[in-house]
Amino acid sequence: MKNTFRPLVLAAALAAGISAPGWAMQPDNEPISPIPAAKVTNPAMVELGKKLWFDPRLSKSGFISCNSCHNLSMGGSDNLKTSIGHNWAEGPINSPTVLNSSMNVAQFWDGRAKDLKEQAGGPIANPMEMAFTHELAVDMLNSIPGYQAEFKRVFKKDKISISEVTDAIAAFEETLVTPNSRFDKWLKGDQKALTKNELEGYKLFRDSGCVACHNGVAVGGNSFQRMGLVEPYKTDNPAEGRAAVTGSDADRFNFKVPTLRNVELTYPYFHDGAADTLEEAVNTMGRIQLGKVFTPAENAKIVAFLKTLTGDQPKLEMPILPPSSDKTPRPEPFAKK
Amino acid sequence: MKNTFRPLVLAAALAAGISAPGWAMQPDNEPISPIPAAKVTNPAMVELGKKLWFDPRLSKSGFISCNSCHNLSMGGSDNLKTSIGHNWAEGPINSPTVLNSSMNVAQFWDGRAKDLKEQAGGPIANPMEMAFTHELAVDMLNSIPGYQAEFKRVFKKDKISISEVTDAIAAFEETLVTPNSRFDKWLKGDQKALTKNELEGYKLFRDSGCVACHNGVAVGGNSFQRMGLVEPYKTDNPAEGRAAVTGSDADRFNFKVPTLRNVELTYPYFHDGAADTLEEAVNTMGRIQLGKVFTPAENAKIVAFLKTLTGDQPKLEMPILPPSSDKTPRPEPFAKK
Repeated sequence: MKNTFRPLVLAAALAAGISAPGWAMQPDNEPISPIPAAKVTNPAMVELGKKLWFDPRLSKSGFISCNSCHNLSMGGSDNLKTSIGHNWAEGPINSPTVLNSSMNVAQFWDGRAKDLKEQAGGPIANPMEMAFTHELAVDMLNSIPGYQAEFKRVFKKDKISISEVTDAIAAFEETLVTPNSRFDKWLKGDQKALTKNELEGYKLFRDSGCVACHNGVAVGGNSFQRMGLVEPYKTDNPAEGRAAVTGSDADRFNFKVPTLRNVELTYPYFHDGAADTLEEAVNTMGRIQLGKVFTPAENAKIVAFLKTLTGDQPKLEMPILPPSSDKTPRPEPFAKK
Repeated sequence: MKNTFRPLVLAAALAAGISAPGWAMQPDNEPISPIPAAKVTNPAMVELGKKLWFDPRLSKSGFISCNSCHNLSMGGSDNLKTSIGHNWAEGPINSPTVLNSSMNVAQFWDGRAKDLKEQAGGPIANPMEMAFTHELAVDMLNSIPGYQAEFKRVFKKDKISISEVTDAIAAFEETLVTPNSRFDKWLKGDQKALTKNELEGYKLFRDSGCVACHNGVAVGGNSFQRMGLVEPYKTDNPAEGRAAVTGSDADRFNFKVPTLRNVELTYPYFHDGAADTLEEAVNTMGRIQLGKVFTPAENAKIVAFLKTLTGDQPKLEMPILPPSSDKTPRPEPFAKK
């Protein structure tokens, strides 16, 4: 009954001038779910976190902010192979996007931080990144009347500690989600949201096995997997992956599966940033993870699908940062002479 | 008559519960004028200019944008003595604020660019700043479909050149004005906009001779003056000032007088960034430009007045930058190995 009924509905829709309903494919228990919009429960904490996110005074130089490497104008990434840190240090690994990062099973490529709060403290004190210390960051904030008042309003405490700083940054980061991608619209039943080509790309992505790792609400981010399952991945990058955290040799080259949400914006790809384009990334992943060689036509379809995962980017008004007071220690970008 | 009349008005006002009217001082042919709000005549060009302003792909490294050194979250400056450029180069001079810079007689401390359009091309190609070339910047933009389409809509041309790039950046910069400071409200007749202390500070500022250079709509920016008129200014900074442009020895140490609008936000001060605080800047200026030693109480009053020059900061939604295409040359932050 069902098979004979569908063409009739299609014919009727076409006769009525309605677009073809998704080339006879409709979402049905798909391994990817639509991303929900952010729910802001504490707007004052989010606003404070936004200020901290954009404040380069959290770095030794006064030049590097969270946004330097997770630029919200560029998909929450820096679009560099590996990042630039204090004194132009060449970072060891590609900066993952902050967008939808609250949905990750853990933070950093090796998952060494259990959540956004724990992650937020990392770069501030990393000598290759912001090169500050938590103590100096807190002293700096405590010296600024505008911050003092705002922390007090938000946390009802007189004294700022690093815990409130990372709480506020994490609260801001939790709002950085990207709903309403065309793929999510299709998942929710809008048959016109995807083209035939994109939908064929999704079927290839799903049926080739990519979804074994890239699934769920963030299309990844929810497991650690070995880079080079079928064929070893060749790289000069020394990162060990999860083994650096667990100490277990079995975890070597296990990395957190990156989210594919907004992947069109977060080039270059992989933990070493070696793949400049989506075409290259899809080819490499097919080969080393699945033992598959996609034809150029198949590759192009998968890339077309991946571009439908770009959602609404966060609309953010640039914060105006409270000025330093006369007592605020000044940044030290250059070695003393 | 006038002298006997005023107290009567004051008494009547006080009796009616109205605040004291500016401690008997009202604006009357003041040497400073209120700053007008920006008039946006071409919003599409401004929007494109905003994208370029925030786009680090205009630098060789892909890391430094206009906003890196003229941060619109921090009074349009970087709050560093001198700026950080490509490969962590130590810049030769303090980054002046971009706020209200359209009102400057010329651009840069030595006035070597006649207007904002001419200025905008400078840092892109300066090896100590963004370290790119105009040709590479234009090639980069031409390789990005989102920019191609936007330039075409704005300029009705198929081909982007550096001229359209700097036109758009200048159009955006022209919108970065800061009206409605408390001092401007007082100038416009709001007697309650300033405290007694602030108004006394303004009288000191005006009557001590500061306004000889810091006058007009931007409270400066409209002339070149010698740094160290009365007493030589001691600095390790090698900048020659206007002499570097004119070649005339008479112009040595002649610098563009900086605007004092938003000066509370644009620390540190002077072309070498040597003064960390307004207190220090006022002391030094009094001594070397006017031959005056302000008492601590006088200094504090002048500083209180200067803080009333902080206007409404531009409200800006962070732009979402069009992603690079597969053909876009990738940034080169680090020397090749």
